[in-house]
Amino acid sequence: MIDYVAMAEMIRGWVEEAGDILRESLADNSIKVEEKTNPSDLVTEMDRFIEKFYVQKIQEHFPDHKILGEEGTYDTFEDLKGFIWVIDPIDGTLNYVKQKRNFCSMLAVFNDGEPVLSFINDVIHEELYEGVKGHGVRCNGHLMEPIAEHPISEGLVSINTRMEMRDPERARSIVGDSLGVRLMGSSGLEMVQVISNRISAYVTTPLSFWDVAPGMVMAAELGLKMTRPDGEPIKLLENNPIIIANPMAYEQIIGKFSN
Amino acid sequence: MIDYVAMAEMIRGWVEEAGDILRESLADNSIKVEEKTNPSDLVTEMDRFIEKFYVQKIQEHFPDHKILGEEGTYDTFEDLKGFIWVIDPIDGTLNYVKQKRNFCSMLAVFNDGEPVLSFINDVIHEELYEGVKGHGVRCNGHLMEPIAEHPISEGLVSINTRMEMRDPERARSIVGDSLGVRLMGSSGLEMVQVISNRISAYVTTPLSFWDVAPGMVMAAELGLKMTRPDGEPIKLLENNPIIIANPMAYEQIIGKFSN
Repeated sequence: MIDYVAMAEMIRGWVEEAGDILRESLADNSIKVEEKTNPSDLVTEMDRFIEKFYVQKIQEHFPDHKILGEEGTYDTFEDLKGFIWVIDPIDGTLNYVKQKRNFCSMLAVFNDGEPVLSFINDVIHEELYEGVKGHGVRCNGHLMEPIAEHPISEGLVSINTRMEMRDPERARSIVGDSLGVRLMGSSGLEMVQVISNRISAYVTTPLSFWDVAPGMVMAAELGLKMTRPDGEPIKLLENNPIIIANPMAYEQIIGKFSN
Repeated sequence: MIDYVAMAEMIRGWVEEAGDILRESLADNSIKVEEKTNPSDLVTEMDRFIEKFYVQKIQEHFPDHKILGEEGTYDTFEDLKGFIWVIDPIDGTLNYVKQKRNFCSMLAVFNDGEPVLSFINDVIHEELYEGVKGHGVRCNGHLMEPIAEHPISEGLVSINTRMEMRDPERARSIVGDSLGVRLMGSSGLEMVQVISNRISAYVTTPLSFWDVAPGMVMAAELGLKMTRPDGEPIKLLENNPIIIANPMAYEQIIGKFSN
């Protein structure tokens, strides 16, 4: 039996250290930025530095584990056997650059294709979320409560900008049924809002696997539904559009995608 | 000559005290909520309590000043002569209730129709913004820098949910020119994002005067433009749709409303 709680304890230290490095990096006002695919897809020196930091820790302690990282670190995956680590060193790099807040650093661990551990560090707000299969979700060590079911009419929703642009009818239909929109601009923090019941649903166009992977074990532990909008499970290691919501709101939103 | 700096110093103490009360109010988990005009327009005991707290302070120190408050405190205004105080005890009450964060407490002071002082207290993030005519804007005592002009293509934008629902073509046009949308769900905090250069523009359907008043002196002090979307000045004591942005982004957005 693998002791996921002990494993989480060690990883937590790395994630905290990465958070400290990121916080300090904002103090010196000289973030070096490059565009990746377009002006809103950025990479900084720190994205690469933090990914490298995690990779070194993983390789030191778990030399036979495989790694998928946003900034180019990846092994070949012939199947989902064994341990796979998914790294998003800075999720919300645009916020990191423009806002110096509202970004997070994330890790997710899969064992034989099953999500078993994940970490989302809301660095500036100093909130570290940690999900451990079978042991719930903690924020800064405090166990979080399962989310009570409620319809979208009783909650706020988050819909990413691209969905608003490309699928405006459906976006407006979801928003119109809700109490309003909130959008932070980091998929990790958007998932954290749902996990914390501060928003009731997060709906997006396809995102990279590292953007959504950490939500999976947390959603499962708190009784939330998290799938692709066609109701199919998240496809591991691939790009996925997602819905994450409490079961009642989830059914309402899924219904809007089936017709 | 009225010493606005000395006046601001006294008011700051009240706003800090109101922030402490609001922070404590979230600890006991028993917020009493009523609907006002619709399910997303809420009022809590604390809205009323904080408004009363400000009114008592104002009446004690400035008995001849007039007051406009969100929760029903208002004098009759035959003209804009003399001092008028505008109170929004909790801006973002829906966030206060659903998120226990992302709300603020705001005050604005006008003298003979001119905005002279304002306060926006981002209570949970412990950031108190303070604008004093002729003396700039401070966040927790630190003087803020004027915003460098830049086009919307280089920044993030905030557009309120109602505008997205009622004027989707224009909303999408603005969003499409920008790097993306962010939305906190509190007009006060939305204005704070622009004032801090974390977003480049905030565009909304008509809001109550207490929702927008505190932005006026801050925008003026930092070189931002803030008007109605038809380019007309904000109408004092009335409901106003607004644009607040750096001059370059402002001109681009205004252009979308003129055709």
